[in-house]
Amino acid sequence: MRAEVLGVGTELLLGQIPNTNAQWISQALADIGVDVLQHQVVGDNLERIAAAFRLALSRADVVISTGGLGPTGDDITREGLAAALGIRLIRDPSIERLLRERYAVRGREMPESNLRQCDVPEGARAILPQRGTAPGIAIEAPGGARVYLLAGVPAEMREMMEGTILPELTRLAGPAAIVSHAVKTVGIAEARVGELLADLFEGSVNPTIAYLAGGIQVRVRVTAKAPTRAEAEALIAPVVDEVRARLGDHVFGEGDDELEDVVGRMLRAAGRTLACAESLTGGSLAARLTAVPGASDYFLGSAVCYTGEAKHEILGVSRATLDGPGVVSEECALEMARGARRLYGADVAVALTGAAGPDPHGGRGPGTVCVALVAADGEVGRTVSALGDRAMVRRWAEQAALDLLRRHLAGLPVPERLGPATTGTA
Amino acid sequence: MRAEVLGVGTELLLGQIPNTNAQWISQALADIGVDVLQHQVVGDNLERIAAAFRLALSRADVVISTGGLGPTGDDITREGLAAALGIRLIRDPSIERLLRERYAVRGREMPESNLRQCDVPEGARAILPQRGTAPGIAIEAPGGARVYLLAGVPAEMREMMEGTILPELTRLAGPAAIVSHAVKTVGIAEARVGELLADLFEGSVNPTIAYLAGGIQVRVRVTAKAPTRAEAEALIAPVVDEVRARLGDHVFGEGDDELEDVVGRMLRAAGRTLACAESLTGGSLAARLTAVPGASDYFLGSAVCYTGEAKHEILGVSRATLDGPGVVSEECALEMARGARRLYGADVAVALTGAAGPDPHGGRGPGTVCVALVAADGEVGRTVSALGDRAMVRRWAEQAALDLLRRHLAGLPVPERLGPATTGTA
Repeated sequence: MRAEVLGVGTELLLGQIPNTNAQWISQALADIGVDVLQHQVVGDNLERIAAAFRLALSRADVVISTGGLGPTGDDITREGLAAALGIRLIRDPSIERLLRERYAVRGREMPESNLRQCDVPEGARAILPQRGTAPGIAIEAPGGARVYLLAGVPAEMREMMEGTILPELTRLAGPAAIVSHAVKTVGIAEARVGELLADLFEGSVNPTIAYLAGGIQVRVRVTAKAPTRAEAEALIAPVVDEVRARLGDHVFGEGDDELEDVVGRMLRAAGRTLACAESLTGGSLAARLTAVPGASDYFLGSAVCYTGEAKHEILGVSRATLDGPGVVSEECALEMARGARRLYGADVAVALTGAAGPDPHGGRGPGTVCVALVAADGEVGRTVSALGDRAMVRRWAEQAALDLLRRHLAGLPVPERLGPATTGTA
Repeated sequence: MRAEVLGVGTELLLGQIPNTNAQWISQALADIGVDVLQHQVVGDNLERIAAAFRLALSRADVVISTGGLGPTGDDITREGLAAALGIRLIRDPSIERLLRERYAVRGREMPESNLRQCDVPEGARAILPQRGTAPGIAIEAPGGARVYLLAGVPAEMREMMEGTILPELTRLAGPAAIVSHAVKTVGIAEARVGELLADLFEGSVNPTIAYLAGGIQVRVRVTAKAPTRAEAEALIAPVVDEVRARLGDHVFGEGDDELEDVVGRMLRAAGRTLACAESLTGGSLAARLTAVPGASDYFLGSAVCYTGEAKHEILGVSRATLDGPGVVSEECALEMARGARRLYGADVAVALTGAAGPDPHGGRGPGTVCVALVAADGEVGRTVSALGDRAMVRRWAEQAALDLLRRHLAGLPVPERLGPATTGTA
């Protein structure tokens, strides 16, 4: 099955936003064994949208477009597809009912302009949205190709891909199963992963092995194709075991696991509670921990103290530390963690302080991050240096704190060189 | 002058990396007045690369490709272009000399496989790289279109764009500028924006007007093309003024402004300090505020209190409130804000509490968010209801708190229905 992804939107051609939808869709299709052979992007122009659909339909079995389904006049993907197929748009009452209900629930009148969203190409089926109000559209083209029109807002696009399109295509793709297993690592550079696994990569065909550096972590993906899922899994298993063995305790999880998921499960299982104290991350460590549903089982809170005064008053960081080693020091991080543990009455506390950049802070250069963990059975502090801009330094800082937590909870050693492995990442 | 951007690389079709090169090139071309009408992406496949070049040459005056110029066997963009044009590849001695020198400087022998990089389509000109070892290629196609082949590594691509291609195209395009101006709004639905601006949108040609709903905000973009930047700006100005007038106090900023940037500038200008208290957002409000460089000028901290106990102990939320209206109530939000203001000694404090979902919390359904602001000159609390998943509800909550802050600092009224306008986004 060959697929093509079509992005619609002048903002893409003006370079105002990246086409992340095409990336997400491509990855999702690859995971279910559907080959993506082309991407196209066109602007909000009826003729060019129609031409793009015609071209895609001439060479693909599945065409997925994103964008141009909103209620405004420049949202003309529906019209473009209808023109390409030579069919009419007709009003779908089920969409109209849904939209009117959405507005009614919120005590608002639906703007009449929204009625445009109720028009679908003749013979098409609406994919009603759970969020937002842009219905997706599914239609079988005369030649048999399947066309899906999705909203451009990433969350709405993903909802329809996950809820409707991926399940449909998985069924159509037939009995062949593609199974993919991702091993995720922290604190090890992509180049080092490459070295450790070099002989496995060489000529790997089924399963194939690929690795992907995602800014703050390296993912190794093993993929096999077989007549059944069980056979594909049997092909994968020994390779995954070998990968895990070679990468050792840098492996923190699998699949879609993030460090905050893994740490959350460990805290819940151990029946322990967590608090944080944050300076340079400004709350983003706690935000990641609480992005996990059910985090209230173990997460108590985080004291974001951006000033020296707040660190002293709220967390009890001593004047001697503030005036001596300063706000960016392991001493300060340890005192912050002790303060957070006391303040929230937590079993374990982690603290982060540092210079996020672009300017130096507390006498330390941008990228210097101090992290500490305090628990009943011990304390540990580390200084790590992260490369990159402000956002990147904050991401690395979160990663270091979460990895410190993971290692503490799992009883793993905490290396002197904890933290970012920036070298060799792409 | 019409341009087309062609991305070459199977990693793009597998979704392993986003096509940021297309975005960067498009933005750079827009800035010099070159219209980009299409993007294409193809994999490392000779036939499909050749077909993509043929298609692009049939409709564009300038074709810029990225990727596939490296030394390995799957780098075949050169071959693809030669096939599309029906010409041969010939060895370019200037490239060979450069590459051998590059290796010699580093004391290494050039691998013979690198010689592939010295082959260019007959009649082409090499663009020698300052960094990296992949030479770019420029050639005029028989029909007169200009074709540029660039490396896929973003830094190498940008070097050639900035050093060679943009200056060449600027000369060719003559005096023309495209200027774009974005007006950003909060708390108003895309459909409502469409209604308010309908007559401006109708038949707008130069400047053009477009809307873009980005999940939590609506952006209105006005774009004009003229011989000079000043003339383009003069075309835009009255339209932008009209747009701002019609959208009123829903307009919070322009261009790349986010609410946290705008609020930060207002706080700095007013010499006022800010603290937060957060429950459902778990620190993400503070994380956004501190993502802005220099936030320490006005931001003191945030007390993330995820449990009722922490709200009571740290922020002083009363037992009566916890046991009465509960943790998801305007009363609780107000007491949290008062507590944060006292704790950090801030001029202004905002607080957020609510049910992020997927489960109800504090007796309120997912999506219920209470926000409060407390300052020396007054207090205000609101309850808003957000649609969407956990991440979306948190984003809406942040947006409501930042908008409340913006309105307070600007002396604007705070509507009863503050907050999300989720309907009509696409």
